[in-house]
Amino acid sequence: MKLVVINPNSTQSMTDKILESARAAAADGVVVEGRTAHGAPASIEGHYDEVMAAAHLLREVQQAEAEAADAIVVACFDDPAIGACREIATGPVIGICEAGIKAASMIATSFSIVTTLPRSVPVIEELVRRYGLDHQCRKVRSAAIPVLALEEPGSNARQLVRDEILRAIEEDNCEAVVLGCAGMSDLTEWLSVETGIPVIDGVTVATKFAEALVGAGLKTSKIGAYAKPNSK
Amino acid sequence: MKLVVINPNSTQSMTDKILESARAAAADGVVVEGRTAHGAPASIEGHYDEVMAAAHLLREVQQAEAEAADAIVVACFDDPAIGACREIATGPVIGICEAGIKAASMIATSFSIVTTLPRSVPVIEELVRRYGLDHQCRKVRSAAIPVLALEEPGSNARQLVRDEILRAIEEDNCEAVVLGCAGMSDLTEWLSVETGIPVIDGVTVATKFAEALVGAGLKTSKIGAYAKPNSK
Amino acid sequence: MKLVVINPNSTQSMTDKILESARAAAADGVVVEGRTAHGAPASIEGHYDEVMAAAHLLREVQQAEAEAADAIVVACFDDPAIGACREIATGPVIGICEAGIKAASMIATSFSIVTTLPRSVPVIEELVRRYGLDHQCRKVRSAAIPVLALEEPGSNARQLVRDEILRAIEEDNCEAVVLGCAGMSDLTEWLSVETGIPVIDGVTVATKFAEALVGAGLKTSKIGAYAKPNSK
Amino acid sequence: MKLVVINPNSTQSMTDKILESARAAAADGVVVEGRTAHGAPASIEGHYDEVMAAAHLLREVQQAEAEAADAIVVACFDDPAIGACREIATGPVIGICEAGIKAASMIATSFSIVTTLPRSVPVIEELVRRYGLDHQCRKVRSAAIPVLALEEPGSNARQLVRDEILRAIEEDNCEAVVLGCAGMSDLTEWLSVETGIPVIDGVTVATKFAEALVGAGLKTSKIGAYAKPNSK
Amino acid sequence: MKLVVINPNSTQSMTDKILESARAAAADGVVVEGRTAHGAPASIEGHYDEVMAAAHLLREVQQAEAEAADAIVVACFDDPAIGACREIATGPVIGICEAGIKAASMIATSFSIVTTLPRSVPVIEELVRRYGLDHQCRKVRSAAIPVLALEEPGSNARQLVRDEILRAIEEDNCEAVVLGCAGMSDLTEWLSVETGIPVIDGVTVATKFAEALVGAGLKTSKIGAYAKPNSK
Amino acid sequence: MKLVVINPNSTQSMTDKILESARAAAADGVVVEGRTAHGAPASIEGHYDEVMAAAHLLREVQQAEAEAADAIVVACFDDPAIGACREIATGPVIGICEAGIKAASMIATSFSIVTTLPRSVPVIEELVRRYGLDHQCRKVRSAAIPVLALEEPGSNARQLVRDEILRAIEEDNCEAVVLGCAGMSDLTEWLSVETGIPVIDGVTVATKFAEALVGAGLKTSKIGAYAKPNSK
Repeated sequence: MKLVVINPNSTQSMTDKILESARAAAADGVVVEGRTAHGAPASIEGHYDEVMAAAHLLREVQQAEAEAADAIVVACFDDPAIGACREIATGPVIGICEAGIKAASMIATSFSIVTTLPRSVPVIEELVRRYGLDHQCRKVRSAAIPVLALEEPGSNARQLVRDEILRAIEEDNCEAVVLGCAGMSDLTEWLSVETGIPVIDGVTVATKFAEALVGAGLKTSKIGAYAKPNSK
Repeated sequence: MKLVVINPNSTQSMTDKILESARAAAADGVVVEGRTAHGAPASIEGHYDEVMAAAHLLREVQQAEAEAADAIVVACFDDPAIGACREIATGPVIGICEAGIKAASMIATSFSIVTTLPRSVPVIEELVRRYGLDHQCRKVRSAAIPVLALEEPGSNARQLVRDEILRAIEEDNCEAVVLGCAGMSDLTEWLSVETGIPVIDGVTVATKFAEALVGAGLKTSKIGAYAKPNSK
Repeated sequence: MKLVVINPNSTQSMTDKILESARAAAADGVVVEGRTAHGAPASIEGHYDEVMAAAHLLREVQQAEAEAADAIVVACFDDPAIGACREIATGPVIGICEAGIKAASMIATSFSIVTTLPRSVPVIEELVRRYGLDHQCRKVRSAAIPVLALEEPGSNARQLVRDEILRAIEEDNCEAVVLGCAGMSDLTEWLSVETGIPVIDGVTVATKFAEALVGAGLKTSKIGAYAKPNSK
Repeated sequence: MKLVVINPNSTQSMTDKILESARAAAADGVVVEGRTAHGAPASIEGHYDEVMAAAHLLREVQQAEAEAADAIVVACFDDPAIGACREIATGPVIGICEAGIKAASMIATSFSIVTTLPRSVPVIEELVRRYGLDHQCRKVRSAAIPVLALEEPGSNARQLVRDEILRAIEEDNCEAVVLGCAGMSDLTEWLSVETGIPVIDGVTVATKFAEALVGAGLKTSKIGAYAKPNSK
Repeated sequence: MKLVVINPNSTQSMTDKILESARAAAADGVVVEGRTAHGAPASIEGHYDEVMAAAHLLREVQQAEAEAADAIVVACFDDPAIGACREIATGPVIGICEAGIKAASMIATSFSIVTTLPRSVPVIEELVRRYGLDHQCRKVRSAAIPVLALEEPGSNARQLVRDEILRAIEEDNCEAVVLGCAGMSDLTEWLSVETGIPVIDGVTVATKFAEALVGAGLKTSKIGAYAKPNSK
Repeated sequence: MKLVVINPNSTQSMTDKILESARAAAADGVVVEGRTAHGAPASIEGHYDEVMAAAHLLREVQQAEAEAADAIVVACFDDPAIGACREIATGPVIGICEAGIKAASMIATSFSIVTTLPRSVPVIEELVRRYGLDHQCRKVRSAAIPVLALEEPGSNARQLVRDEILRAIEEDNCEAVVLGCAGMSDLTEWLSVETGIPVIDGVTVATKFAEALVGAGLKTSKIGAYAKPNSK
């Protein structure tokens, strides 16, 4: 099985990190390839960045499709352009927000999300509501760090994320925490140990869910909204 | 006041039609300009087209912003990239789906929507739910016509739309119908007469709502999710 | 175009203030007339007052209808008797709560409401839910002032409203604030300046939305719940 | 215990019928008195009638309060002015829609409602949603009869109601039916026998729920929205 | 009329207390019998306990059915196995959570719930949502006491419950409080006096609602999900 | 990795079938064991059967836990006692309804469910709503067959299921179908071919999701509602 994990922003170090997480999670025999949406913004912080990344992301999806990828993971917590990716792809396409919160809902009655910037909070709140899990989501929280701070060696970003998780435990009574940015992927284990709560990394879970759907023989439905784009 | 109405697809005849509707609706003293998202798909029929149009749409929003537009209407019923447009724009940005259904909810207790292709139905259903009006929306219906059929002289598209509205009245007990495509804009009056139900054209209503918000002194909030995009 | 703005309580100074706001907002060529629901309570603070005002309000709607008003604004944030007004009226009828929150939802991803007395909070919460915007409403807040304190020169009511808006910004992370009482209409500009957040006055917005619907050629649907009352 | 059942319309024969149902349902020792909202419309068919009845209804509530009624039933399926009644009353106030559907939800997983005129359907749909039971309500149906047809000896109204219930069973897969008009109260037993489904009369159930709340020592909460009206 | 009140745990002192509340509430002529689910856990604190109690509870329901009980109250706030009880029983079966919150919603616009252990909070939140009353429930709170602490003479459990109610009033702006455990039944009056808010005991209210439904001639619907279990 | 798949009813042939599906789906290196809830009803058709099966199911969960199972699948579409299973288990516990519909929502914008008996429809509707996916579920349908008909060689059960799926495609415009009974597991491939729509088997998907969660290093959260049962 071939799985393509696409970082929809153009920061290579994030792609590397994401790919590492995906490969660590992948089952034996699953070939995981990482792709960077070259030309996209360096990070996705809001709706505008999402749009400016989307066409580049789709190009990578088309490339993955051309290379017969069995499944695709879109590794940005805003789940950008997921519907469009699903129209192009034959196999399943999984966004890390959808994967993260659906996984959380299978191991806990409630969860909070910790993301980077405050401006992403309403974006994620809308996603959670769209996926139907707002009744299990205690709160979407921001650690008040830019996405790229997660890439800077020596920044205190990881401490800020940990502190926000501890506040989530204290104030939200949540039973799990979902990391609200692909760039936090490498912190998952450390954060789990530091906080004592299940900490869920969307990249890891999306990788496994992609494997799961492929393993179950499922492909994206092509009889409705996710049919191949109409030619003009 | 200067209002820019953007057709997010690249079909000039649709822009002309949309502009005509917007100008017919605009108050005296409102300058309405029409823009075409050159480079976008010829029509927006699903998520993929939406993404492929979005960056071109944003370019037009930026241009409008540079020209000090007071408000912007995005004239496609999928309300593509509205959040991103709002991040860029200073003034209000109105999508025709949001405008159409919010207008409907002010003059009727329920409405149905008639769009073009079946594949757009789930896209619009999700929009309606996102805007919180699913409890007033009886049904999203498709007239089973491609968007561009509305541009072909002599096609039976208008008859199919009318017939679908008549079915909506009969089967849904709706009190108003919202036209689910900017390309139906020129049919509004004819359809109202033919069907005897309030028929709501999103282009017209979005034009008026844009004027209304500007007239009320309101601009897009810049303290949260719609703040200017972060520079990288 | 003729727009009638009805104050459903019997306090003339409120009518004057409301009329001033509406006239300031109205487009050239729109004749705005103000009406007071003589016989109604001096202020509407809860369900009982709402009922005691409603028949007087309807009498003014009927009068407006007799005088061929093109649209009607009901200037109380509880949106009293809106359904009944719509049954009587030919043109659109807009309540200031519905107008205020729907406007807010077009320029911000979330908003809070600041009203007068605590007892109005649940009334407004129910309205917001009825209009389907509870997912965008962060909180309904009370400044803990009686409605008529807003009419007393020298009262500290405006300071209390401002302070509550500042708390909303701090605690709710809202992106806009809707003023939850028609009597706050004259404070809008001052509050916007003081708080730096879009402050939305329902009277102003309802006036503009009424113009918008009339300008779009829309009237209240008469084929369902808003049909003329049955004669007995 | 003293229970006052108020017919919010002015048709005495409906009051008599309602009172008969309430008395038949009441426990030994409960004194049930019937009141007619003289001055109100002869029937309540829509929002306007509701408003025109409301002040007359409140006058009867005040009278009941003056006579130390322990509880009040408002016998119209639109639950008119319930919030206002609760502000005035010390004891519980029960509307027959709320009572009917909450009873239905205790004996069945789903129910449909059969009311009189089509125009009341959206009014009741909104009520059901307000009470939070839309997920258990299969459909609100109309038997297409004016309210007062239920008062005419020899009309075929009862047959039409029965036929609509049979359609509800067939088409909705509902497990119970709630009668959507106080004027159907006397048909309950006959309809149950004819249709073989639990048929719920709001008047009967509201009477019993009023007894229940009084028996449980509960009164209307006076610390929030249902506090006594503010004096002006 | 014969009413059987079943304590689904095996603690006899709780049954005694519950029975006392039910008998105090019951109307003249209603025979109330108490049953203990011998073999069940000593208290129900979470999903596991609920399951381990359920079959024992059903055995008591069957026994009650064999003895021609007219109605059944299940006296645990998790409303365990209510659907199953309704399949077996001919008459109405009422759980105390459903009864408590539906009663609260008839006398107040909002309520909070105070239960025993934190682990029961999500269980009750899900119940409240299932019953459709999440929009009226301000918060589900825990007094942080094990269920059986309520049975220990001299424990400070009642003080802790009172303090939590006072916090609910202060922080939640709720208009009523529902006691979230059958074992708090005997504290109702004391808590009402101490806190000045309507305090609702599910046992009392369920007893009265059971009487009410029987008095209204209603039985559990047998044409759908609550039909008698299929024989195998 | 060791996965235990539990059939919560006592029909061995169903366990065999379920185990076959799970093993066919499982990745290399995953040991799948099947367990039958001996003592449970022969099939689960409604709430009563669910309760009568639950304690037997929990016994098997405890046994699996004792044998250090890494994850557990509960193979009945009513997801019986899932919360209780999660309290006992250390690893993830997946019900086939939750797995089936969450998988469906990742490959399609909407789905319908086809179950066995009509009485299971409301049970599943409630589950779907509890999981938050009611907005994506077009309809829960019954093929009108007893569960055990699926075990009878030569019965026409499979044809009836296929016909119901075809009706779902025709009438619901769904983009995928979820099989609403573990006993349909062996029909998945045949039904997919016959109907041309993605047909989702909960057993298969739950198996893969269990693997996925284990592979992602996730266990059931033990800090809230799913903590180990309290000892008494």
